[in-house]
Amino acid sequence: MNLLETTLTRIVPPDDAWRTKARQRLDQLIMPHWALGRLMDLALDLAGMTRSMNPPVARKTIITMAGDHGVAAEGVSKYPQEVTAQMIHGFVSGMAGISALARLAGARVVVVDMGVAADLASLTKAGKVVDKKIARGTANIAAGPAMSRENAIRSLEAGIEVVDDLAASTDVFGTGDMGIANTTPSTAVVAALTGLPVADLTGRGTGIDDGQLARKIVVVEKALALNRPDPRDALDVLAKVGGYEIGGIAGAVLGAAARQKPIVVDGFISTAGALLAHALCPAAGRYIIAAHRSAEPGHRAMHARLGAEPLLDLGLRLGEGTGAALAMNLVDAAQRILTEVATFEEAHVSKAEA
Amino acid sequence: MNLLETTLTRIVPPDDAWRTKARQRLDQLIMPHWALGRLMDLALDLAGMTRSMNPPVARKTIITMAGDHGVAAEGVSKYPQEVTAQMIHGFVSGMAGISALARLAGARVVVVDMGVAADLASLTKAGKVVDKKIARGTANIAAGPAMSRENAIRSLEAGIEVVDDLAASTDVFGTGDMGIANTTPSTAVVAALTGLPVADLTGRGTGIDDGQLARKIVVVEKALALNRPDPRDALDVLAKVGGYEIGGIAGAVLGAAARQKPIVVDGFISTAGALLAHALCPAAGRYIIAAHRSAEPGHRAMHARLGAEPLLDLGLRLGEGTGAALAMNLVDAAQRILTEVATFEEAHVSKAEA
Repeated sequence: MNLLETTLTRIVPPDDAWRTKARQRLDQLIMPHWALGRLMDLALDLAGMTRSMNPPVARKTIITMAGDHGVAAEGVSKYPQEVTAQMIHGFVSGMAGISALARLAGARVVVVDMGVAADLASLTKAGKVVDKKIARGTANIAAGPAMSRENAIRSLEAGIEVVDDLAASTDVFGTGDMGIANTTPSTAVVAALTGLPVADLTGRGTGIDDGQLARKIVVVEKALALNRPDPRDALDVLAKVGGYEIGGIAGAVLGAAARQKPIVVDGFISTAGALLAHALCPAAGRYIIAAHRSAEPGHRAMHARLGAEPLLDLGLRLGEGTGAALAMNLVDAAQRILTEVATFEEAHVSKAEA
Repeated sequence: MNLLETTLTRIVPPDDAWRTKARQRLDQLIMPHWALGRLMDLALDLAGMTRSMNPPVARKTIITMAGDHGVAAEGVSKYPQEVTAQMIHGFVSGMAGISALARLAGARVVVVDMGVAADLASLTKAGKVVDKKIARGTANIAAGPAMSRENAIRSLEAGIEVVDDLAASTDVFGTGDMGIANTTPSTAVVAALTGLPVADLTGRGTGIDDGQLARKIVVVEKALALNRPDPRDALDVLAKVGGYEIGGIAGAVLGAAARQKPIVVDGFISTAGALLAHALCPAAGRYIIAAHRSAEPGHRAMHARLGAEPLLDLGLRLGEGTGAALAMNLVDAAQRILTEVATFEEAHVSKAEA
């Protein structure tokens, strides 16, 4: 068996016995029943994932996967492809959005070159970027498949390897992405897996205008018609219309699930990766914490498919892992509620009247 | 002039010149335009309130105002009135929901006895609770006014005094409440100020059943019919159908606004206080940061009246300041975006194609 297959066999769902144990405590906290709402739901999830009444959450790592996309040639983004590599320099020097928000969250950012169309050797040799480069960008999905099936497997395994290398020093993972044009393959992935109309799923990404949006819809429809990805075969969807960083994120979700660690999934591109992981192994989807609902219309369809309700809704559309960094605080909050709030009995507070 | 009048005369709106200056920087950050959405709007607000491109946010104080309510005798809550004082012991000993979430936020909690129907002298003498007690609970609003007009002014001034005492050591304030039955007067306040139907505004508070909910609606309608609060006179509304902690919160909002400091407003009861502050002085409303949308249906009407969009929507219905504590992290995030992310020019990143 290869790494992907062994990882898939190791994934089991969260443990309901630990969820029940956590629920019994939360039911007794000195507050009206379930008065901290979604945070209490999240506390149950953490207990079930980690098999603990004191889920470890202190050590946080956000994995920001970067890759380029041949489909950028179709004019689907507002920014030139060179920005992918430029932004990686921004991440490494601590000047980007994810840098600021990860510092606030107390999270380490690990940047991975999954397939950037530029030479990042100076950064990978210096240990500032993890080198998992599969190719200098995918092929143009409007003209053929993004990558071979072998490279799709390689991208998933690279994500698993990154998590495996970080697992000993990480309690909670987060995902992030960088890749000019990558809302286009992400839209194609969700359209392929759900069968929903492309026009309903396609958004403005970096802020394209009406003309570019119409063009982007045509490009995604063309990619699907030409490549005919098989919705029952997630590897085929990734290979035909995905991206290297999307595969890397999917692999990271599988790796975290195999190690029974929570993984906070960022925005539209990250959730496309999570959707592929879920399609490969539904139980892996239960280790996902959906960080936020982004401005991309297709994000809602992704969350519906995953059965996940995002924690935040702040009109974010940056990626990089910024939403995951923000949601880390709510993960901490859920853990604190489970571990630091007293029960009625412990605090000698009167219960509700029967 | 009394303290209330001098405070009202000192309040001026946030400074648009600082908002513009902040917008000019945020427009140039290395990300698609306004890609961090609501957090960037919040960064503008912080710059305008504090007149600074580096808004101070490090020192956080959550003021949790406590009071009891004569209307509790009508059976509108699931919990007995003694719980108000019991929970204050929970706050002081660090065992409550607000204790855990304020620790996470790095916020100090200052508990104020505005009108608890119990003897808290052991706590106030030990300096663990601030003594602003006006009376041992309000009168029953279903049978007459909650308090005299003089005591309404006293409650507002107590809130201003608390903020004045804390201002030298606080960058960002938060509000919180404790008071069994206090969703009932809060509902009466929003109904009186907006004229909306009581049935549309009334919720389950601590988790009352259908029968109690129907009764609560009747109680609020009766309180309004009997007391006839004047919607153009916020002091009259507070005196007739409000509460001491609600007045204290309104005063805290006025005090923070007078000192040009942001104040993060928690849930339904806190927002009733904010609504009264806004009615007394619309400019004060512009120093409010709405923390979250609670499970109470009337909260939406309050935010609409304030023109405020809450940051979080997590089904919280605890109060105490818990939502404000959670939202503090987003205040920090907005400040970091304004101060720690580079511009395209600073980072040598290519801009969007024209």
